[in-house]
Amino acid sequence: MSAEPTRALAQFVAAAAPAALPDKVCHEAKRAILNWLGCAVGASTHPTVNRALAALHPFFGPPQATILGRRERGDILNVALLNGMTSHTFDFDDTHLKTVIHPAGPVASAILALAEYVPVDGSRFLHAFALGVEVECRIGSAVYPSHYDVGWHITGTAGVFGAAAAAGKLLGLSATQLIWALGIAATQASGLREMFGSMCKPLHPGAAARNGLAAALLAQQDFTSSAHGIEGKRGFANVLATERDYTKIVRGLGETWGLMENTYKPFPCGIVIHPVIDGCLQMRKEHALAPANIASVDLRVHPLVLELTGKTRPASGLEGKFSVFHSAAVALVDGVSGEAQYSDARVLDPIVMALRDRVRASVDPALKEDAAHLRITLTDGRVLEQRVDHAIGSLARPMSDGDLEAKFRALCAPMLVSEQVDTLIDQCWHLETLAAAGTLARMTVPR
Amino acid sequence: MSAEPTRALAQFVAAAAPAALPDKVCHEAKRAILNWLGCAVGASTHPTVNRALAALHPFFGPPQATILGRRERGDILNVALLNGMTSHTFDFDDTHLKTVIHPAGPVASAILALAEYVPVDGSRFLHAFALGVEVECRIGSAVYPSHYDVGWHITGTAGVFGAAAAAGKLLGLSATQLIWALGIAATQASGLREMFGSMCKPLHPGAAARNGLAAALLAQQDFTSSAHGIEGKRGFANVLATERDYTKIVRGLGETWGLMENTYKPFPCGIVIHPVIDGCLQMRKEHALAPANIASVDLRVHPLVLELTGKTRPASGLEGKFSVFHSAAVALVDGVSGEAQYSDARVLDPIVMALRDRVRASVDPALKEDAAHLRITLTDGRVLEQRVDHAIGSLARPMSDGDLEAKFRALCAPMLVSEQVDTLIDQCWHLETLAAAGTLARMTVPR
Repeated sequence: MSAEPTRALAQFVAAAAPAALPDKVCHEAKRAILNWLGCAVGASTHPTVNRALAALHPFFGPPQATILGRRERGDILNVALLNGMTSHTFDFDDTHLKTVIHPAGPVASAILALAEYVPVDGSRFLHAFALGVEVECRIGSAVYPSHYDVGWHITGTAGVFGAAAAAGKLLGLSATQLIWALGIAATQASGLREMFGSMCKPLHPGAAARNGLAAALLAQQDFTSSAHGIEGKRGFANVLATERDYTKIVRGLGETWGLMENTYKPFPCGIVIHPVIDGCLQMRKEHALAPANIASVDLRVHPLVLELTGKTRPASGLEGKFSVFHSAAVALVDGVSGEAQYSDARVLDPIVMALRDRVRASVDPALKEDAAHLRITLTDGRVLEQRVDHAIGSLARPMSDGDLEAKFRALCAPMLVSEQVDTLIDQCWHLETLAAAGTLARMTVPR
Repeated sequence: MSAEPTRALAQFVAAAAPAALPDKVCHEAKRAILNWLGCAVGASTHPTVNRALAALHPFFGPPQATILGRRERGDILNVALLNGMTSHTFDFDDTHLKTVIHPAGPVASAILALAEYVPVDGSRFLHAFALGVEVECRIGSAVYPSHYDVGWHITGTAGVFGAAAAAGKLLGLSATQLIWALGIAATQASGLREMFGSMCKPLHPGAAARNGLAAALLAQQDFTSSAHGIEGKRGFANVLATERDYTKIVRGLGETWGLMENTYKPFPCGIVIHPVIDGCLQMRKEHALAPANIASVDLRVHPLVLELTGKTRPASGLEGKFSVFHSAAVALVDGVSGEAQYSDARVLDPIVMALRDRVRASVDPALKEDAAHLRITLTDGRVLEQRVDHAIGSLARPMSDGDLEAKFRALCAPMLVSEQVDTLIDQCWHLETLAAAGTLARMTVPR
């Protein structure tokens, strides 16, 4: 294996065989794909997506692939763009915590569209997905944190490499062509953190999916790039980061897998609030709490919670996602924390607002990021306490397969009939048996 | 006018009226478009373009617009991509010397494709082109040279803003929508200098054209971005440059025009060789030189000439472009310096090679970049000398309209019949009278 990162990744991807993918990595790939698919279907009629579709639909090519959760079809490049967008629109997708990359979006969006155009069986699809995630997480790890600190949205900038590698694998590119594909990806890497809070944030994984897929298609025709797209003097790592460590790219290739460090959000809001929501849901269930019986809620939280989600009086669903106060209150009232709990109506609901005003939060620097302490005083004077050491969805306490299924059902319920949802879940868990991975996409079209 | 650069540019573009464009700027716009069009038609069957087309054609949308110089048509986004590529493939396009941006490619490629899809008369087309060039040159000036030194190919990174602004103007965007369009452009800015020498270099203005056009189309549907895409804390100028000067963006808007500092290459090779070629052509003409009568050629040149183009024994046409020795020899043999002088065959021609081996070059740090000194010793013992103070094509000695016509004819001759070429030249000079600017594109299709 070459010591040059670009060449090493290209050689690794070119040589990798589906049969060598460890079972646990294969299963984690299915979990990531199920989670990604639910996020994409759930957000498929969001205004962000509707506006992008209105703008770009007149320029779509042949109906080769499926926009997940919708009836419109399009050419594979535009579909990769749209599905990458929808999967990140709710900010509910997966997170590689070490790099804060959301890995599935760019990679799965590129190759599921491709799999509707060229024959790809489920086994090769899962393998290419794992390779793509590996490439993006390794490149991201090599430049994190300086790259992110400079202001790059790493899901876009690292994601384009993952999409190129995964699509390149499915197209059967040679190692030399994969070097070019990584170079063509490098020179399209983009996405600024300045855009957070606007519709451009989900545009980034969408563009990464489309541009990475196009990079692989171009390389397949021997469209050339630098052979050192990552490490060259004026390549990706030198231009887009102030510090870099290439051992993160080349060491242990094929032995350790980024997918094994992937996590899934149980709740559709800022991850720092998750320990609090987790605690609220546990206490409501255990004590059968009703809002009228709660006198006050006192939270002790990691400092980032109030820095990032300290909004005491959110005025909209989107603002509610940045309010630990709304998040705690609505979880206690509804006993669930899904996209429905962050509608404008729920944020402005009188019962939720009244309880929200009885929630107080204080910072405890001794708490880890995935921990929280909750104290609820009841109107009858009793005091209940709950300590959350590791929030559900953290690496230490991952969502179970059943949790992921429940999340998937909640996301898809407004879009698909339950029979479809059941079939999709079953197909994800048995992806390696599918003769054509593209059927997964076609199953998401509303009846 | 706002002091914030993003808002200032958006307000300027939204408010600008075609009638206020000074005549000399309008004329320079025509010169830039004629030059751009010739470069695009000339390179339209180059392997770079053939490979890109082979890769992407299966995904093209409806035949809305013309790939210049070819019979294939495509949707306006893919056509913008392809025409941006072809126009930079020969590296023969225009240069804004202050920023080394090649301004026409991203802007003209975006709006000519758009003008085949929505009605745009020639006057509005010229005006939008001037505005687009203005936006990209001002943004480029604000971050040059640190942005370029870091490793960014500024034609791609600044070009995407120019394409977005020009297309946004033609789509009638409001100032708010133009702010979004500039933000959507900012977050797609890409293109690494690492790719120089590969097929990815011309991909950059192509991607800038497509992404800028898409940014305008998205903004038209109220797809939002940050309101501070350029100057935001994590916006374009802070993330992609180490130094920045926003006065270069906001000062004198509508009073000074980047187009007036635009230059055109007379010869299809590195601009640093141009003084030598200019001198060779002058001496051959004046003294009716024949290769057999030349004993030796001694050049004194700016230091960059040998640093960038010091290849003594080029083996291919592309390498010939990086050889001052081949460039001087073939100019003396052929009496002309066009794309034909950089074919593999001309580089390996025995007469050219023999004369090339009699060319010597030495560095003279006292010479300016656009100057050179030539001394030719004849076989009969006579010594001829020529001093070039400002090479043809420099700002001090610009190509005349006639020179640009001759360059256009040479570029188009292999592709189009002479009647078409005459018509295209005439249409460029009278662009403001065209009822539909898109006819310019359709006139480049080979008969």
